[in-house]
Amino acid sequence: MTNRITGFHTADVRFPTSRHRDGSDALNPFPDYSAAYLEIETSEGDHGYGFAFTVGRGNDVQLAAIEALRPMVVGRDVYELVSDLGAVSVSLVGDSQLRWLGPAKGAIHMAASAVLNSLWDLKARRAGLPLWRLLAELPAAELVGAIDFRYLRDALTPAEALDILERGKEGKEERVGDLLATGFPAYTTTPGWLGYDDEKLARLSLEAKNDGFGMIKLKVGLDLDEDRRRLGIARAAVGDLPIGIDANQAWGVAEAIDWVNGLREYEPYWIEEPTSPDDILGHAAVRRAVSPIRVATGEHVHNAVMFKQLLQAQAVDVVQIDACRVGGVNENLAILLMAKKFGVAVCPHAGGVGLCELVQHLSMFDYVAVSGTTDGRMVEYVDHLHEHFVDPVVIRDGRYVAPTTPGMSAQLRPEAVLEYLYPSGPAWVSPPAARSGSDALIGG
Amino acid sequence: MTNRITGFHTADVRFPTSRHRDGSDALNPFPDYSAAYLEIETSEGDHGYGFAFTVGRGNDVQLAAIEALRPMVVGRDVYELVSDLGAVSVSLVGDSQLRWLGPAKGAIHMAASAVLNSLWDLKARRAGLPLWRLLAELPAAELVGAIDFRYLRDALTPAEALDILERGKEGKEERVGDLLATGFPAYTTTPGWLGYDDEKLARLSLEAKNDGFGMIKLKVGLDLDEDRRRLGIARAAVGDLPIGIDANQAWGVAEAIDWVNGLREYEPYWIEEPTSPDDILGHAAVRRAVSPIRVATGEHVHNAVMFKQLLQAQAVDVVQIDACRVGGVNENLAILLMAKKFGVAVCPHAGGVGLCELVQHLSMFDYVAVSGTTDGRMVEYVDHLHEHFVDPVVIRDGRYVAPTTPGMSAQLRPEAVLEYLYPSGPAWVSPPAARSGSDALIGG
Repeated sequence: MTNRITGFHTADVRFPTSRHRDGSDALNPFPDYSAAYLEIETSEGDHGYGFAFTVGRGNDVQLAAIEALRPMVVGRDVYELVSDLGAVSVSLVGDSQLRWLGPAKGAIHMAASAVLNSLWDLKARRAGLPLWRLLAELPAAELVGAIDFRYLRDALTPAEALDILERGKEGKEERVGDLLATGFPAYTTTPGWLGYDDEKLARLSLEAKNDGFGMIKLKVGLDLDEDRRRLGIARAAVGDLPIGIDANQAWGVAEAIDWVNGLREYEPYWIEEPTSPDDILGHAAVRRAVSPIRVATGEHVHNAVMFKQLLQAQAVDVVQIDACRVGGVNENLAILLMAKKFGVAVCPHAGGVGLCELVQHLSMFDYVAVSGTTDGRMVEYVDHLHEHFVDPVVIRDGRYVAPTTPGMSAQLRPEAVLEYLYPSGPAWVSPPAARSGSDALIGG
Repeated sequence: MTNRITGFHTADVRFPTSRHRDGSDALNPFPDYSAAYLEIETSEGDHGYGFAFTVGRGNDVQLAAIEALRPMVVGRDVYELVSDLGAVSVSLVGDSQLRWLGPAKGAIHMAASAVLNSLWDLKARRAGLPLWRLLAELPAAELVGAIDFRYLRDALTPAEALDILERGKEGKEERVGDLLATGFPAYTTTPGWLGYDDEKLARLSLEAKNDGFGMIKLKVGLDLDEDRRRLGIARAAVGDLPIGIDANQAWGVAEAIDWVNGLREYEPYWIEEPTSPDDILGHAAVRRAVSPIRVATGEHVHNAVMFKQLLQAQAVDVVQIDACRVGGVNENLAILLMAKKFGVAVCPHAGGVGLCELVQHLSMFDYVAVSGTTDGRMVEYVDHLHEHFVDPVVIRDGRYVAPTTPGMSAQLRPEAVLEYLYPSGPAWVSPPAARSGSDALIGG
């Protein structure tokens, strides 16, 4: 008997984060961080986990999109699938009917991401390696074979990708040792949500500095005077520690330029999402006008073709990949390699539900096998919801500790899935006031 | 009692077009043309109709996305809704949780389109006017107010939009008269599907010319020699009638340039979708390299920010709006006005299910109130599935006859909804061979 995919289980998991305004920003006043969660199972009892992150409403739509991909996976031979994830990627992203809902963007693309990531998780678990290490040890040709170059060749050819990976082998073992010893740099967004008061902002900013984080990040974009005041408080608290600012797409191009220049005296390290994530030319115009303040974007950039153009147009200083937005590990490999070619730092978006858990693997792979450096590289860290994961991220001295457990760290604790199942789980059914105990997010 | 939205009925309507390979192209070998269909109803018994077009699988996902918007419409006061559709657009497209699934792209954006179009349909029905005429008669300020300029101001300001519309009033009544007398130019894609044999290609091409169409269009991109052969057949059949070619995103940038230049001797009028619809810089590169062959795109361009950049980057000669892909009439108003400002012709994408019915209204409005000309303007026409609509398009002498029935022509015949309901309708339940009668798409 061959080993086949026999189980494809989805769950609508939502955390009622809006009750505390954790995660509030200019365009997301009241998010309920959620996972459209997927567990795949094989006839030999192997498992793989993946999910798409959403902020509440629409998590059911996201699940429907994942369910639409079920027939392309269930019944398939596991070895065939995980030995050619490039072909799987093309079949999922390029399905001749489903691609109309994208193509390669929005809910259907995030669904492909969830499925592809679950297969990478499965592959890494079968190999007994954490994903970052599996990627670092795979033959360069297999990694290149995982990428769909159809629309990317004008920026990166397969031969160039191979060359980057071959060159990345030099010193790799040293970097693996360094990573295992000291971890990967992180920055934190925990102090900077718009809903927090001044005292909390100052206190959390200083804590972040003392904890060793490489940067703190503040949400901006609702009110310029208020942003100046809050940036002043944070700057006073952290001294010369870098402070990133994040507008979450609040502005048009001219407004972005004026607003960011109005914050110049606080020396922001980067401005993140100054305008529409689709506006490549707009980002380029903003970047020219606010230099030396860096421009960062990516958490809503929907695929590698868009990242390609952001690089070609010199529109960004920092590429912020997201583990769940683009087509999974496959498309993120393409983005990491393009960023390397264009000499741009990758500082992933994280936070949400499990985004830190997933994306740390990609940055660690980037360091050991692609970019070869941690200079100017940091993974976002937000101290939310990690307790619900089987293999949660560990932060030590403001850095991500390299995971050693096999897989992509994507598995939720089974109890958490049941507790936060929407709308039937206890977290949603019981009135918060009547509950107590371990869950700090409920009540208060 | 105020008039409120009381009904919000969705239906999964699929036509088994793949049984005949109608609609086949390089990336869509076997589409089942489908509508994620929406009927809204008011407490006073008014109705509005809208839908998102898909090509089969995923129509259920599209319906789930439309359902997610239900709470934003049901129970609302009809007058408030239809008198400020700009505010409705912002609330649907900008919902702080649902926008994560886009933002403003893919299934969730097409859902917004279906809902917004149903409200425009309702508004036009209540006014007793076909949509094109309602739009032409609305105050310029109301049209401008329907547009979200947040990310567009660097290309078009509200003042510029107002100015275009004010200038469009000059000669408007003459153009309305002309339109009612002679209709709007059309071109046809009917001859050019990849699945058709040579005899059928030549015969349908000549028929199209004799019918008075302004252009025929051929699908290309699977095999260059085959494309040369088929273009030769079509060119021989139609003489100097323009022939558009459509690659449906088959190529990367360099490949597009080589391929199109390899077809140059057949003098294609335009190359449509030469590469990824997301690749603004790629389209610009192709355009520079294949001139004077025009570059056209738009049916998969997901919002006005992308069209803005295609215009800013001088990446296209022809803007192909789609009635259901971007955020409904609202966002298409923005695109029409930007195209006018940049001096680029709008030739809408149509075909599918009901896309001709909807988009004719936008081109007719464009002619009478925005561009003021039909030079280089044509609406795509495909002779499919019109019989299922209550107010089907009428083609006379190769031109669209201006609709006079109130609304946006979006209503399917109730019998068609029941017949093609997926998966329970008779068209899907009964084996084709056992059926006979009126439905030419079934059997054979």
